[in-house]
Amino acid sequence: MSEQNKIPQATAKRLPLYYRFINNLHIQGKLRVSSKELSEAVKVDSATIRRDFSYFGALGKKGYGYNVEYLLEFFRKTLDQDEKTPVALIGVGNLGTAFLNYNFTKNNNTKIEMAFDADPNKVGTEIGGVPIYHIDELEQKLSEVQAAILTVPLAEAQNITERLIKSGVTGILNFTPARITVPEGVRVHHIDLSVELQSLVYFMKHYPLDTDEEA
Amino acid sequence: MSEQNKIPQATAKRLPLYYRFINNLHIQGKLRVSSKELSEAVKVDSATIRRDFSYFGALGKKGYGYNVEYLLEFFRKTLDQDEKTPVALIGVGNLGTAFLNYNFTKNNNTKIEMAFDADPNKVGTEIGGVPIYHIDELEQKLSEVQAAILTVPLAEAQNITERLIKSGVTGILNFTPARITVPEGVRVHHIDLSVELQSLVYFMKHYPLDTDEEA
Repeated sequence: MSEQNKIPQATAKRLPLYYRFINNLHIQGKLRVSSKELSEAVKVDSATIRRDFSYFGALGKKGYGYNVEYLLEFFRKTLDQDEKTPVALIGVGNLGTAFLNYNFTKNNNTKIEMAFDADPNKVGTEIGGVPIYHIDELEQKLSEVQAAILTVPLAEAQNITERLIKSGVTGILNFTPARITVPEGVRVHHIDLSVELQSLVYFMKHYPLDTDEEA
Repeated sequence: MSEQNKIPQATAKRLPLYYRFINNLHIQGKLRVSSKELSEAVKVDSATIRRDFSYFGALGKKGYGYNVEYLLEFFRKTLDQDEKTPVALIGVGNLGTAFLNYNFTKNNNTKIEMAFDADPNKVGTEIGGVPIYHIDELEQKLSEVQAAILTVPLAEAQNITERLIKSGVTGILNFTPARITVPEGVRVHHIDLSVELQSLVYFMKHYPLDTDEEA
């Protein structure tokens, strides 16, 4: 896709979700899918799905639905599924360990290649097949890595972020409560567990009959 | 706030974030804050902050900024900070353990009161002060609980969801890759670690100069 044809960010955020379910349908041998079926599977309303898909041209046919193989090929290209992005994980606590044990490689173009921690008991071991290096080795090991998952203690977040960026990292998935500061050209997605929980409670109280998640 | 004055969901999602930082400013003894300062702290552009705040009436004054105490009081009420919402956590694996160790109670109206797991080695113990019960005791213990954090294996997600809903849970923070099905009136927020990582990579590649996160 050219830079001129930027799709809305809300749409872009749903692409990995669509891709995974379409891939599952493909594995099950399904040849076509309606926006209604897709809607029930991914829990996004079908009007939104049709609008999202429309940004990529007319992918569906009325009364037929969408061709699964076509969609799959389309999303594979759009999401660069043939190009693996090496990822590093920084901070092998409980949350970091959960990530390492999580099967990211299934139907996926991202792979955690290495992890870092300061704990000498963890350094030199492997979790989920991923080697754990000492945090002091960060600059030395990171040369190929573009994206990092940040699961370090709050007080370390900004310092580690700066070291990651100096080493060439251009994307950070930040799971610390810190709102880290980065230069232009570095992308940060922030997932704050406490904010997510408060947000859920707010919606439970204020939108009790609106069951749709903000997908 | 009345049901008539619903604010946009994107705004609602940012409220817990604003609340936390305004509370921090208050603790530091600050009396006022500009939208620019707030923007730098929470990493949301100041136009968005001003628009968000405008839904609650004219909270700021030109050339002065916002009164910290007023904002704090306002957000405390809006987010029902005086009303604790009891939360249960289901599935004490690495991710569940990370949640239990996470300090949710700080400046917060949510508290994990109990956790459930099937592992007899975990049942009867405590993590972060939270007692762990056997999953068979779910229906018996849940009477007061409205919200649940779901960190169980994929294959258990739908079954446990149904048991939670029968026990009166109306909000679920779903960390499993499953897209769970719930009846009307039950709110689900879904955080899929794999989708988050893919989404980050997509934005790194397609929006390389847009550093703002979709807050």
